[in-house]
Amino acid sequence: MENTVILLLSCPDREGLVSRISNFIFERRGNIIDLDEHVDLDENLFFIRVAWNTKNFTVPKEEIKEAFTPLAKEFNAKWSINFQNKKLRYAIFVSKYDHCLQEILWRYSTNEYNIEIPLIISNHEDLQRLAANYNIDFYYFPITKEKKLGQERKELELLKKYEIDNVILARYMQILTNQIIDEYRNRIINIHHSFLPAFVGSNPYKQAFKRGVKIIGATSHFVTEVLDDGPIIEQDIVRISHKDSVRDIVKKGRDLERLVLARALDYHSNHRILTHGNKTIIFK
Amino acid sequence: MENTVILLLSCPDREGLVSRISNFIFERRGNIIDLDEHVDLDENLFFIRVAWNTKNFTVPKEEIKEAFTPLAKEFNAKWSINFQNKKLRYAIFVSKYDHCLQEILWRYSTNEYNIEIPLIISNHEDLQRLAANYNIDFYYFPITKEKKLGQERKELELLKKYEIDNVILARYMQILTNQIIDEYRNRIINIHHSFLPAFVGSNPYKQAFKRGVKIIGATSHFVTEVLDDGPIIEQDIVRISHKDSVRDIVKKGRDLERLVLARALDYHSNHRILTHGNKTIIFK
Amino acid sequence: MENTVILLLSCPDREGLVSRISNFIFERRGNIIDLDEHVDLDENLFFIRVAWNTKNFTVPKEEIKEAFTPLAKEFNAKWSINFQNKKLRYAIFVSKYDHCLQEILWRYSTNEYNIEIPLIISNHEDLQRLAANYNIDFYYFPITKEKKLGQERKELELLKKYEIDNVILARYMQILTNQIIDEYRNRIINIHHSFLPAFVGSNPYKQAFKRGVKIIGATSHFVTEVLDDGPIIEQDIVRISHKDSVRDIVKKGRDLERLVLARALDYHSNHRILTHGNKTIIFK
Amino acid sequence: MENTVILLLSCPDREGLVSRISNFIFERRGNIIDLDEHVDLDENLFFIRVAWNTKNFTVPKEEIKEAFTPLAKEFNAKWSINFQNKKLRYAIFVSKYDHCLQEILWRYSTNEYNIEIPLIISNHEDLQRLAANYNIDFYYFPITKEKKLGQERKELELLKKYEIDNVILARYMQILTNQIIDEYRNRIINIHHSFLPAFVGSNPYKQAFKRGVKIIGATSHFVTEVLDDGPIIEQDIVRISHKDSVRDIVKKGRDLERLVLARALDYHSNHRILTHGNKTIIFK
Repeated sequence: MENTVILLLSCPDREGLVSRISNFIFERRGNIIDLDEHVDLDENLFFIRVAWNTKNFTVPKEEIKEAFTPLAKEFNAKWSINFQNKKLRYAIFVSKYDHCLQEILWRYSTNEYNIEIPLIISNHEDLQRLAANYNIDFYYFPITKEKKLGQERKELELLKKYEIDNVILARYMQILTNQIIDEYRNRIINIHHSFLPAFVGSNPYKQAFKRGVKIIGATSHFVTEVLDDGPIIEQDIVRISHKDSVRDIVKKGRDLERLVLARALDYHSNHRILTHGNKTIIFK
Repeated sequence: MENTVILLLSCPDREGLVSRISNFIFERRGNIIDLDEHVDLDENLFFIRVAWNTKNFTVPKEEIKEAFTPLAKEFNAKWSINFQNKKLRYAIFVSKYDHCLQEILWRYSTNEYNIEIPLIISNHEDLQRLAANYNIDFYYFPITKEKKLGQERKELELLKKYEIDNVILARYMQILTNQIIDEYRNRIINIHHSFLPAFVGSNPYKQAFKRGVKIIGATSHFVTEVLDDGPIIEQDIVRISHKDSVRDIVKKGRDLERLVLARALDYHSNHRILTHGNKTIIFK
Repeated sequence: MENTVILLLSCPDREGLVSRISNFIFERRGNIIDLDEHVDLDENLFFIRVAWNTKNFTVPKEEIKEAFTPLAKEFNAKWSINFQNKKLRYAIFVSKYDHCLQEILWRYSTNEYNIEIPLIISNHEDLQRLAANYNIDFYYFPITKEKKLGQERKELELLKKYEIDNVILARYMQILTNQIIDEYRNRIINIHHSFLPAFVGSNPYKQAFKRGVKIIGATSHFVTEVLDDGPIIEQDIVRISHKDSVRDIVKKGRDLERLVLARALDYHSNHRILTHGNKTIIFK
Repeated sequence: MENTVILLLSCPDREGLVSRISNFIFERRGNIIDLDEHVDLDENLFFIRVAWNTKNFTVPKEEIKEAFTPLAKEFNAKWSINFQNKKLRYAIFVSKYDHCLQEILWRYSTNEYNIEIPLIISNHEDLQRLAANYNIDFYYFPITKEKKLGQERKELELLKKYEIDNVILARYMQILTNQIIDEYRNRIINIHHSFLPAFVGSNPYKQAFKRGVKIIGATSHFVTEVLDDGPIIEQDIVRISHKDSVRDIVKKGRDLERLVLARALDYHSNHRILTHGNKTIIFK
């Protein structure tokens, strides 16, 4: 783990990509421990995730990016080099519901995720105590239509101060404006309590109840300008029946939301996600 | 089985409904073998399915309806009396895809369903041979925009001639007009190849691919005037990934469609479905 | 909810049972809000769960048992009368793993269960703080082979002192002796981390890994004298692959265990379980 | 598809394996279209599946094996070179149940599998007509304890005559002796109607009913000398309840068996399976 580097890369497909990339690693005495690739034949695009051990790697960590740059330029690639031992820093936005926050903090406390969560931001004070139980700084920013932009600016300052890499919306009941979305493009993970694209917007469980569906879902996705429309990371479902009231559906859905968001964070924190247009490639 | 009667009933809820109904049966020496009821507290509605053995029932079969009528009137109920040993008669509408037809005919041949399928109607000739394998009459009605109403009138005549109770659309790629829908209100079962209400209309698998969902579904529902909007009977899902092309999704979905339609038919032929507005109660 | 009574009853099947029971309720002006019954045709046994509202019930709560006794005797029934507004009292036994305890306590704190949890017993001190977070009394009884019987006797005294109705083994890593099992026959709920009857005993995840299964499970069951052999209440599964190490399997299984135990407790606390021999009837 | 070669290889892990193998392909102008690898860290073993396009490959097809041999020897590997355009030939063994045979033949008829099925062998005559529907040769070998070895010898001769690569046991109700198992080591695919290792042997559905499980399963595995103990290829499950009789369980299980066997055949025919001891690696 300690010496693992992960390359995430996408580029137009062409011959020899796997060979050239694995050679780059092999020639510098890296040992590949995991390699997964995918070719989108329709769009002629190549996606790869390679993890290698750097124990005997001849390039020092701080120079790997530079060393790989010529190859990446030649491939016309979008790419990133990620170090397993550098913990990504996440902030969590919440409102009043505690289940998603509780789930993530509990997993965080068991060291399931290789991350740091130094900051929780909320538009309500309700979950302050839960944050305190886990010794995480909690900031309260009440939101009104008028104050929204101003409050978000303060939130952005906090995100910078805490050196936050990514944001998790754990049932945060406010729509973020573009000033935050732009700053954290494909770095804000939301959990929506429906099987998207069904039941976009508010009260999806009530919508599901009214439509009489036999299965409900939850969806974790990256946040974009369009509500509930960003690249989907993970989804799951649970069966319901005519016996389930809206309240029962909310209860069943709650368990889905927790697990779907937890899995999305697992993929994300392990550098398993590449986005392409409005879709994700998840290297499991 | 042979002597089983099934009452399906819905009415405004009030005290004593279960007792009054079970008494009606008990006093006439029927033996209840299955009873399931449901109260919709929001709308104050009562739904019940009772099956009883008529071996010692003091009311002859042909008079049961009449005998129950006073109670039903008192309850202001929608209701039906169904005899397990009277096989419902289904017609199947198909186009070119064979998988749903194949599935139902195979199950039909194993006597899994307590039904008759005397008639298959298609707007293409492709599945004539499959119908012949199972010795079922097959009629070919090519559909064009101009001829549609006329062809449907002939189809309706056939449905009457064959004394068809219910219609199954087994991937029938035409939209029925109201003249058939009205005649078979809540008696036409469709299979739609998406997790409704997501991806209404044509090419749902392609829509699913484009949206980048991680799970696809299939939905069996009753047909109404509004496309893909009728009461949902059954749904199921299967997981997909970025590795799945539209062709892979179609293949995975095919297996879903078969099973979801087969289950819907199972519920329907065993008198396990009550509709209420745009929703179904499924007594499993 | 407040005025709801639930009858659970099993007896040899015969004609008129539903009618006689629903009449008993109706004649005393109870309003049935839920009724589910099941007949085991192989063994000719009848099982029923009826819930009714006692707002206008002519029998006072404390006399319902007595009033029903003649009918129950006539039916030769095993039965119980349960009051929704009387909270059952559960004790939880734990060892070192916190996930199941955490799950139940969190749900308990959201009032999801209509129960009391006044007591947690452990053979380790690790989870004392978690108990304290939820203000629940925690007792530490270290277990050795020699001390086991003596410690259990003290535990039994505590169970009595706290007026405990039922016991939950939330990954309690000790095998209970008969002195506790006898006292709490069909009232001790265990969670076993395998898809029983596969992988009985210790280290089921390691057993699963060695066998190379593609799916793992968790099972909640009542505790009997035979290890992992009591009546099964609930099971669920999750898919694994060759990529999953024993550690990954443990992690995936943990989420299963939590949910399966939580569901079992939901059924149990809502009086939805009847046992019959080594099997359960779950009225959902 | 036409020009695709697939290498399946396992060997002791060491540095540079991916690089050396992808180089072998790249240097000869092959274009890798799919690469998946797995390292078993416990046993220090390396597994890889690589598919490449040979349109511009400088080594003629018939010489690829030879060309790769030095590398394979150096790695001390077990390996195979497979050509996508060379259809594997399967024989199917059946008894009286038709559902698995029906499923595979239907999929075969839709060209879902890239295989040939020239031969069906049965110890009963029941499914002769189904074989005839699909124009496949059907041989009837009644089996008694005394005749078994002799009949199997004749079956082996047929397998050779038809140049059969692999055998599918589609609910074949006889236990094969070692003379066939040895000849087709890891090339006989069975479907067992339980969630192995639970309910080994005969009547698993009845065993499941008796144990009162809440979920049943089906397992496809390679056949070894030990009954129902070979490497597992695929498993799936379906939920049951106390309402399900053994007959209901059989019906639900039937649908599982079909799909699980169909998936196993999909993996197998696409060269996606490596075995290692008693386990499989499935490259999806």
